[in-house]
Amino acid sequence: MNYLLFSGSLRTASLNKKLIHVGSSILKEKNFNAEVIDLKTLSIPVYDGDIEAEGIPEGVKKLSELVNKADGIIISGPEYNGSISGSLKNTIDWVSRIRPIPWEKKTILLMGASPGYFGAIRALGVSKAPFETLGAYVFPQTFALPKASEAFTESGDLSDVGTKKKLTDLIMSFDSFSRKFKKD
Amino acid sequence: MNYLLFSGSLRTASLNKKLIHVGSSILKEKNFNAEVIDLKTLSIPVYDGDIEAEGIPEGVKKLSELVNKADGIIISGPEYNGSISGSLKNTIDWVSRIRPIPWEKKTILLMGASPGYFGAIRALGVSKAPFETLGAYVFPQTFALPKASEAFTESGDLSDVGTKKKLTDLIMSFDSFSRKFKKD
Amino acid sequence: MNYLLFSGSLRTASLNKKLIHVGSSILKEKNFNAEVIDLKTLSIPVYDGDIEAEGIPEGVKKLSELVNKADGIIISGPEYNGSISGSLKNTIDWVSRIRPIPWEKKTILLMGASPGYFGAIRALGVSKAPFETLGAYVFPQTFALPKASEAFTESGDLSDVGTKKKLTDLIMSFDSFSRKFKKD
Amino acid sequence: MNYLLFSGSLRTASLNKKLIHVGSSILKEKNFNAEVIDLKTLSIPVYDGDIEAEGIPEGVKKLSELVNKADGIIISGPEYNGSISGSLKNTIDWVSRIRPIPWEKKTILLMGASPGYFGAIRALGVSKAPFETLGAYVFPQTFALPKASEAFTESGDLSDVGTKKKLTDLIMSFDSFSRKFKKD
Repeated sequence: MNYLLFSGSLRTASLNKKLIHVGSSILKEKNFNAEVIDLKTLSIPVYDGDIEAEGIPEGVKKLSELVNKADGIIISGPEYNGSISGSLKNTIDWVSRIRPIPWEKKTILLMGASPGYFGAIRALGVSKAPFETLGAYVFPQTFALPKASEAFTESGDLSDVGTKKKLTDLIMSFDSFSRKFKKD
Repeated sequence: MNYLLFSGSLRTASLNKKLIHVGSSILKEKNFNAEVIDLKTLSIPVYDGDIEAEGIPEGVKKLSELVNKADGIIISGPEYNGSISGSLKNTIDWVSRIRPIPWEKKTILLMGASPGYFGAIRALGVSKAPFETLGAYVFPQTFALPKASEAFTESGDLSDVGTKKKLTDLIMSFDSFSRKFKKD
Repeated sequence: MNYLLFSGSLRTASLNKKLIHVGSSILKEKNFNAEVIDLKTLSIPVYDGDIEAEGIPEGVKKLSELVNKADGIIISGPEYNGSISGSLKNTIDWVSRIRPIPWEKKTILLMGASPGYFGAIRALGVSKAPFETLGAYVFPQTFALPKASEAFTESGDLSDVGTKKKLTDLIMSFDSFSRKFKKD
Repeated sequence: MNYLLFSGSLRTASLNKKLIHVGSSILKEKNFNAEVIDLKTLSIPVYDGDIEAEGIPEGVKKLSELVNKADGIIISGPEYNGSISGSLKNTIDWVSRIRPIPWEKKTILLMGASPGYFGAIRALGVSKAPFETLGAYVFPQTFALPKASEAFTESGDLSDVGTKKKLTDLIMSFDSFSRKFKKD
């Protein structure tokens, strides 16, 4: 199984990037292939139909190829103003312009880290709909990490053992889910 | 009353830009001030905390000033993949970084045009939450224009008289609503 | 100003009923009229068009009259399964069958208490849409009370002073909001 | 494969009941077992924790057993006031009180019929979240039937051949999806 992971937040020190790296480590420990892509390196612009008419940006093409190759995708998105971040939504929108639509029939696990008490839970709800509209299979359970600025050790692991175990179990359940769709 | 209007879609030939221009004409006929801003001219990048740390982009500052001056804001957003467009959400997110938050206590009318049958109705629902989280007063009624590629005359007006009247009435109701909050 | 308050939960020992009583006390201390109605006493059945054809149930009529008389309505709803409770949605639906629709142009403050960490925050989001569809003015800010089983004193007040102040301030802001619509 | 089907609307002449019967016919033509349960015969009350404390109502127990036996569930729900109907949400909530939770790991196809232009599309979006919170696998595609009062023949079939084919294809895709989870 090949997994693709990315953070919806671009900031270098992003809590969601940290969470993605924990997810990647868990997958590698279990001997799965895990590729992390940093959206910042892709320089995807704000969607504009006039840009699209001149040609799909290279960063969108690159991400689409990675999505096409993946057997499952793990995304950690920040919550901005009680909803999905513009950056993640913009990424979903651009990739949806490629044919065949890369998201279609892909399994997706949604995570979200936030410094507040609610752990991006409202963003997680809003993030499901566009993927499902595009025919992806979003795993029904999600992972919300509240108070994320205090959640990581210096070496980048989750400091709370119970939280780490919960995430590991969730990723294993997501793997079982993803295997069912591998040949679709 | 000073109204600010903009389309969440950047594309030059955008149906939502057409709808914004109809809205602006209606306001001017009723002797209101109506300023239309084209987000494309503002070149707002995808939100990235590292960019913010170097300084809020000029386009965000300019939009924030226009929002601050307005007594009410009319936005027409496209529906991408059954939800808010990344472009509109990104704009909301960037402006929310200015202090005091420009959206706070502003009245907002949400519209949406789409070429399909459902007229951006799902995007309209999703678009309310972030504005309300930020303390804006979103007018409860919205305006969804389905089959929008056939809805405009060559001169840019709405071809259906009933639809035009419905929009005019809605904008007048929104004006009554906005007046209540003018001195907040 | 006459305020109507009710809990979306029917259970006698409901945390949302407790929160409603705190809200009512705050209003009375500020010399507002505050009427609390216990939905349980209204025996509203699950909505069924066949029942409606035989006549609107008395409990629905009674609630509708109370809504009609109110200058503002405060509702505290539980969160069931990450969404609005069936009981509250059923109540909204039944009252929406009366003409003119009692919810129309009414101001509404939504609160939610839950024993968990997220304080009914997902239910609050879902609860706004039906009221707004019906033309009500839902106050953009809401009040979510997490860990509500530990939040009340024996005499039924909120034990945390800061939380009590936050609720008091919110209700006062809601009162300013409601006054704007009093003569609509 | 055993399928359970029900309408979220109780009314005898409900458009959603008609749609459920079309779904049931399609399944039977394809030699699947299809059981239709009429929620009206179950007399499920509005959820009240005090009723639950005295014992789960018989109708809830009966529905839970049917859910337990099913390999997939097809639900057609009306849209009331731009959201899920209180009747369907109440049914979800009651069944969620049984242990183990009957909805968990069940595959669910959501449909919605409405007399209006938007075909219950907003209700469909809201209906997914509670099922997913409870661990069900909701099929990402849904079936929205607008203008449903004109959509059925006198014998109860869908009058439009294209619409019938679309529904048949969707149910077959849902069957492939459900088979993947049969042994979970």
